[in-house]
Amino acid sequence: MFEDLSIFKIGGKVIDDKDELDVFLKNFANIPGKKILVHGGGKWVSEMCQHLGIEVKMINGRRVTDEETLEVVTMILPGLANKKIVAALQGYGCNALGLTGADGNTISAKRRPVKNGLDFGFVGDIEKVEVSNVQFLIKSGFVPIFTAMTHDKNGQLLNTNADTIASALAVGLTKEYKVDLYYCFEKPGVLKEQSDDNSLISNIHERNYSKLKREGIINAGMLPKVDNAFDAINAGVNRVHICHYKDVKNLSKGNDEFGTQISK
Amino acid sequence: MFEDLSIFKIGGKVIDDKDELDVFLKNFANIPGKKILVHGGGKWVSEMCQHLGIEVKMINGRRVTDEETLEVVTMILPGLANKKIVAALQGYGCNALGLTGADGNTISAKRRPVKNGLDFGFVGDIEKVEVSNVQFLIKSGFVPIFTAMTHDKNGQLLNTNADTIASALAVGLTKEYKVDLYYCFEKPGVLKEQSDDNSLISNIHERNYSKLKREGIINAGMLPKVDNAFDAINAGVNRVHICHYKDVKNLSKGNDEFGTQISK
Repeated sequence: MFEDLSIFKIGGKVIDDKDELDVFLKNFANIPGKKILVHGGGKWVSEMCQHLGIEVKMINGRRVTDEETLEVVTMILPGLANKKIVAALQGYGCNALGLTGADGNTISAKRRPVKNGLDFGFVGDIEKVEVSNVQFLIKSGFVPIFTAMTHDKNGQLLNTNADTIASALAVGLTKEYKVDLYYCFEKPGVLKEQSDDNSLISNIHERNYSKLKREGIINAGMLPKVDNAFDAINAGVNRVHICHYKDVKNLSKGNDEFGTQISK
Repeated sequence: MFEDLSIFKIGGKVIDDKDELDVFLKNFANIPGKKILVHGGGKWVSEMCQHLGIEVKMINGRRVTDEETLEVVTMILPGLANKKIVAALQGYGCNALGLTGADGNTISAKRRPVKNGLDFGFVGDIEKVEVSNVQFLIKSGFVPIFTAMTHDKNGQLLNTNADTIASALAVGLTKEYKVDLYYCFEKPGVLKEQSDDNSLISNIHERNYSKLKREGIINAGMLPKVDNAFDAINAGVNRVHICHYKDVKNLSKGNDEFGTQISK
């Protein structure tokens, strides 16, 4: 029987608000068992770019990372954002250890090729999660805190989407653990009506998913998230949860019945 | 018999020059055996402060770290500097893993108290090296790359002198390893004549040190470094080396007869 491992990804709006981030980190520190946190910090990067007079370029909502933007990403994500999170968690008694994919060669990636004239710059598509290296850290009692960067194993850092890192870690670590993946954001989960927080869909599984899609109940913004969740589950992840970041406090009371649970 | 561990500290001038840093990192990657690297990056911090319009304040050559300076330190040291070093080392086949003292609670410190009206701000004086946490990383095959920050275990990051971090790690790890400590800079070692690189003093030990001091051969700038080296040796470190950063390449050929060797 594999040991449980919970992987949490926090979205931009949690990171952006100092007090809300603190609430989340306090709750995260109290979650029992093996765990990993994955975070981005895109808004901080954009603000620092503006501060330094570097143009922020986006294509389809994804950042174009030229050389100077990569320097800002490297200052903000593993620097300011990750170290504030690590120090805060240490203050709450959680033995956090911050990582990019370059650290301990935990996650390697390939620079995204130019396609149809679209060049995202120093952006990486994940090639491999070095499961044994991540496992060494977990077994030593550390709580890995990953930020949204990887490397190409040839000295180049690459900006990599945090959702994708969380999902790649979850899938990779199914070799050694029974993995639950939590996408934490500022809504209670997948909603029937976007404006109604009480319209939570508690469970999505293969049997009701096509019906929910067919009836247009799951909206366009949520579709790729749920599709990715099913990809993770089909690759061996136990369950994927889409939930409010405040609700993870329930886990310290042994209750995991919150948010939207996605399973086979 | 304890296993050998070599701890290297690189000075500002190595970090400041991209090409020289690369030469050092390539040599460092090839050094056999267990090893640790410690680096600062003070000039990068000062440049970014100036870029962002933050006043650089120094007292007796030590940086005064107010809240906004600490943010810049946190962007540059564990961010830009550490991750560039980690990614480059990975490219050279060295399984580098970057750390502040907050990561894995490896080094805790106490904020330096205000004394005689002097307030250094968020500067930490080291309280404890968590030997077992550093050892977990080394035993897992990682090469720890420490930068010049620690934490107070209550959520506060602190700026801490890189020389002091290197020496505290060396002393702490003598519990588990036979430790050699290398201070690498842009001179061949301790010189009789500052202007003459051929005037190297190859060995300093307790028997000749007082004579060298009495005769004024070791100058004022080098005295505290050598005194600190003897402190480390008296606390159990095997040998302290003060050497040119280019000379560490000799270690990959099994030759450690270079620079100034300080021993009992």
